[in-house]
Amino acid sequence: MKLTKDQIAEIKSQQSQSNSTKRVTVPELEKILYEAIPALDHGFVRVVDYMGDDTSIVQSARVSYGKGTKQVSTDSGLIKYLMRHWHSTPFEMCEIKYHIKLPIFIARQWIRHRTANVNEYSARYSILDKEFYLPTKENLAAQSKSNRQGRGDVLEGDQANEVLELLKNDAERTYANYETMLNEKYDGSTIDDNKKGLARELARMNLTLNTYTQWYWKTDLLNLMNFLRLRADHHAQYEIRVYADIMLDTLKRWVPITYEAFMDYRVGGTEVSAKGKVIIQKLIKGQEVNVDSSGLSKREWNELMIAFDLQEKIV
Amino acid sequence: MKLTKDQIAEIKSQQSQSNSTKRVTVPELEKILYEAIPALDHGFVRVVDYMGDDTSIVQSARVSYGKGTKQVSTDSGLIKYLMRHWHSTPFEMCEIKYHIKLPIFIARQWIRHRTANVNEYSARYSILDKEFYLPTKENLAAQSKSNRQGRGDVLEGDQANEVLELLKNDAERTYANYETMLNEKYDGSTIDDNKKGLARELARMNLTLNTYTQWYWKTDLLNLMNFLRLRADHHAQYEIRVYADIMLDTLKRWVPITYEAFMDYRVGGTEVSAKGKVIIQKLIKGQEVNVDSSGLSKREWNELMIAFDLQEKIV
Amino acid sequence: MKLTKDQIAEIKSQQSQSNSTKRVTVPELEKILYEAIPALDHGFVRVVDYMGDDTSIVQSARVSYGKGTKQVSTDSGLIKYLMRHWHSTPFEMCEIKYHIKLPIFIARQWIRHRTANVNEYSARYSILDKEFYLPTKENLAAQSKSNRQGRGDVLEGDQANEVLELLKNDAERTYANYETMLNEKYDGSTIDDNKKGLARELARMNLTLNTYTQWYWKTDLLNLMNFLRLRADHHAQYEIRVYADIMLDTLKRWVPITYEAFMDYRVGGTEVSAKGKVIIQKLIKGQEVNVDSSGLSKREWNELMIAFDLQEKIV
Amino acid sequence: MKLTKDQIAEIKSQQSQSNSTKRVTVPELEKILYEAIPALDHGFVRVVDYMGDDTSIVQSARVSYGKGTKQVSTDSGLIKYLMRHWHSTPFEMCEIKYHIKLPIFIARQWIRHRTANVNEYSARYSILDKEFYLPTKENLAAQSKSNRQGRGDVLEGDQANEVLELLKNDAERTYANYETMLNEKYDGSTIDDNKKGLARELARMNLTLNTYTQWYWKTDLLNLMNFLRLRADHHAQYEIRVYADIMLDTLKRWVPITYEAFMDYRVGGTEVSAKGKVIIQKLIKGQEVNVDSSGLSKREWNELMIAFDLQEKIV
Repeated sequence: MKLTKDQIAEIKSQQSQSNSTKRVTVPELEKILYEAIPALDHGFVRVVDYMGDDTSIVQSARVSYGKGTKQVSTDSGLIKYLMRHWHSTPFEMCEIKYHIKLPIFIARQWIRHRTANVNEYSARYSILDKEFYLPTKENLAAQSKSNRQGRGDVLEGDQANEVLELLKNDAERTYANYETMLNEKYDGSTIDDNKKGLARELARMNLTLNTYTQWYWKTDLLNLMNFLRLRADHHAQYEIRVYADIMLDTLKRWVPITYEAFMDYRVGGTEVSAKGKVIIQKLIKGQEVNVDSSGLSKREWNELMIAFDLQEKIV
Repeated sequence: MKLTKDQIAEIKSQQSQSNSTKRVTVPELEKILYEAIPALDHGFVRVVDYMGDDTSIVQSARVSYGKGTKQVSTDSGLIKYLMRHWHSTPFEMCEIKYHIKLPIFIARQWIRHRTANVNEYSARYSILDKEFYLPTKENLAAQSKSNRQGRGDVLEGDQANEVLELLKNDAERTYANYETMLNEKYDGSTIDDNKKGLARELARMNLTLNTYTQWYWKTDLLNLMNFLRLRADHHAQYEIRVYADIMLDTLKRWVPITYEAFMDYRVGGTEVSAKGKVIIQKLIKGQEVNVDSSGLSKREWNELMIAFDLQEKIV
Repeated sequence: MKLTKDQIAEIKSQQSQSNSTKRVTVPELEKILYEAIPALDHGFVRVVDYMGDDTSIVQSARVSYGKGTKQVSTDSGLIKYLMRHWHSTPFEMCEIKYHIKLPIFIARQWIRHRTANVNEYSARYSILDKEFYLPTKENLAAQSKSNRQGRGDVLEGDQANEVLELLKNDAERTYANYETMLNEKYDGSTIDDNKKGLARELARMNLTLNTYTQWYWKTDLLNLMNFLRLRADHHAQYEIRVYADIMLDTLKRWVPITYEAFMDYRVGGTEVSAKGKVIIQKLIKGQEVNVDSSGLSKREWNELMIAFDLQEKIV
Repeated sequence: MKLTKDQIAEIKSQQSQSNSTKRVTVPELEKILYEAIPALDHGFVRVVDYMGDDTSIVQSARVSYGKGTKQVSTDSGLIKYLMRHWHSTPFEMCEIKYHIKLPIFIARQWIRHRTANVNEYSARYSILDKEFYLPTKENLAAQSKSNRQGRGDVLEGDQANEVLELLKNDAERTYANYETMLNEKYDGSTIDDNKKGLARELARMNLTLNTYTQWYWKTDLLNLMNFLRLRADHHAQYEIRVYADIMLDTLKRWVPITYEAFMDYRVGGTEVSAKGKVIIQKLIKGQEVNVDSSGLSKREWNELMIAFDLQEKIV
């Protein structure tokens, strides 16, 4: 990630602010406010604003439950209770805003989370930066044979180099042709004074999907956790997981108690189906179980065994 | 509005905070932060948190439009442009949280605005306060004859007194019976040690719709304006307009430039249909127009004439 | 539940339709289309329209996953896979519309599910029916001692009668006074020709929360399941569970494969936290576990033991 | 647009259905159900399901307003009233589902409408079709000088050919390299048996933004109109307008009364600000007005004059 002079200056200026407020503040999050945390080769994650903290969740819950919450004596106990029982609305009372730079093909996954506010850089108005994502060699994985949406082994030697070469050349050439069509360089300079430029809203169609875009992305804490639960998961594509992992760190700084409960009940937890419960009950009682009589499919059976670390029972 | 000792202490404590932050702050809004602004006879509106200000809208818009926004030189010009052309997403980048106390029948209207986060006091968990809305005499309007959902003249003399008497007695009696069923007084004291209390989730059904409830209500600036546009309008029921008017004041403090644009383009503006445009064009050219040849219904015609203050043309 | 002559005629007329369509249809659901299924003492649930069936989910999923879904050979296998892995968007491709009559205090819980479309009977425009919910004696439960939002034992003898008497009298008196204020009977007849009626939007505030209202409620299949998961659960208030249980039956008629998967993975399933997983693993291995060393709170421990039917370990 | 044999067979099969239903049906829409209506060079729009018609809107409105709607005697009058006064919820009671094939850069605009349900073809699972959008020469517009997001004159002669050549070559080459990296042709055949293929979720990043994707897109009537209002507007990019125009035709078939009201009040109508109203009032009275004393910016002034066809007053 390389920031421009202007960007560095803007971040410095934002960080040098010191305003007085009666709102709750989170010193641990303030420490990294506005900072551009690198992601992939040219991307970043910046926390640019937030509202509320762990106590805001507690306060809202206590408004809802009134004197009914007195028996849960601590903030931590209450937050764990809310998380465990899917009492989700108090978590909506906190809000966070990120500035994200990311490749377009990842942006297309990300945007499917609809309950967020987004302002994306518009390539109808402006020229996109000359930056595109190129994976590191370790991340050049082959298509998985067993999982239709997953990655298998890493490509080796020549083939890895060949892929990187193709990606690089195609991105560079399509970008160069984008400039040609616009009759304008990425830095705003005109190429040929005797020519018109193609409309930006058209020329952009020549760019490849690894071109970087950027946006402001704002969401409440509940929907942030829904996002992270899916995108920090090992099923998620590596490139979006890189962002989710960084955001998990910001979550920890922002609302540490909620973070703990989230890791315990959502990220580290598992779901067991009605049929799966019967199997687990039998296992606890020392009874014989097997996939054929379980009512589970082979795939489901294995997922259950993996969830409870029963490697020897995988079929 | 009468706050309890505890509430007054809590507000004082919240207001005495002075935290340091790198986030943008709005001094005019900070002045009234946490304050309980009275609404109706026992209700209130409190701003309890906020995120962003006018510059946050501008900043998001400039991310979207990039260099494309340079020609709109001022923040005010840009915000007006966004408002006029329904470029709505930058207004979603600001967020505000209110604590509201309001009668249940108004809460039922309010909750229809779905794009907000809400934590309401739960009468399954706790006993509702012994407070109910009684209109002032000036607000005891008769059913309108011309408008099925509106109010007509104010009720006079004895009838007004009679209505107030009925409302007051029914609310008091149903509340007293609520306590009897709960076997518990509003202050938490048990009525009869030898009796059980009916479950709160059941007893509450005996309360009248003018009983007060309260909630935390959080929304983004765009949806706040959508709410205010409908609820500060003269078609809205008076009792919700009281709240909307107070919130308009908080809007003005919070984002004064946006407030100006909102008043000009949304609240004070009007919409003209395709057929209405033809009528206005003819009027400007001094041509004869009348309802029969206009293609408008009588009702539509009159709405158009009122919008442009052409009283003499109302039919 | 007593329908008016007009309502009965309307339902008959709707049911007598026989239209030809190229859309998918669900014969089992068509059988009960428009029918008013009784709920509580005066409420009902009617399915009035629907779109899609189990095959619509499959079709959408196959568009998403393309050839990638070929390995899941059956519709049933694919739907189970989608449900298990929270691939939720295909379930949004089906839609259903209900006409519901329900007490206001239940409507207030119900409306918190925001991702639905609603048209409620407006008491600003029209007079509410003279119908209010009175629980049966078996449902007159005392406040639970252990669960702040729950019900305990049923009230006995005289106290039950007393409660029913209070509920009935208060509902009837407040309704009668509602008519007096409106100067209009529930059947539309004027009471006193020399008086004006109070505006409907005001008079309604005198009604108790067990008065019945009605609405059209439309949602997609995913959000219907989210609703049912919470509201058909034993933690839900009995009065809303009555509706959810009826709707579960309509779900079974509409999308039987999805219903099966929903019952297995959501309704009958359970969630286990990261800490809980460790306990279950130890139990399977026959190792000693106890609440003190588990890292779980007593409450959490008991919830886990109940989920896996280990009554003897409850502390 | 060229459909595969399989697609043609599937459409024929869907269209040959004739099911009996008690639901409302719309014969005009049934006529084109499932049909692939061509859009751009390789795209299409298909209506694949729907729920409700004009009478469903009326029915919902009459539930809301009860006897209060009796005075609006006709369905058409009621729908116009609802549209004019932004009583939007009855329009949410109808639902429609489309199958759309479209270029990715248009899909990125489209997806910003969040209140819809979407299942997109996943390039993590499957290989994208070898189809990319190439504009016709008439649509190769230069960047507008006056409007930062608009198009100006059409490119002429050689430059147009050059642009088309670049777009075509880059799309073809990046697609060919996509196949090379996948080690798999678009038809599923393996290229080199001794090589592994790069994971699909990675290889896709090499494609250009004019590559076609497809999705199922389902929305309610209100949100469909919000979409069409913005995307059938002359400010919208030509390529999305092509789709919106086709969908406007399907709207007309589906709900003809609503369509009329929508064209009159939304598409053909205009909004006038508070300051603009004063100008129009003066113009009607024959008073002198000019931009300097109007309180309007030059841009705003001109927009107002254009809206009312006062060409001579444009400055």
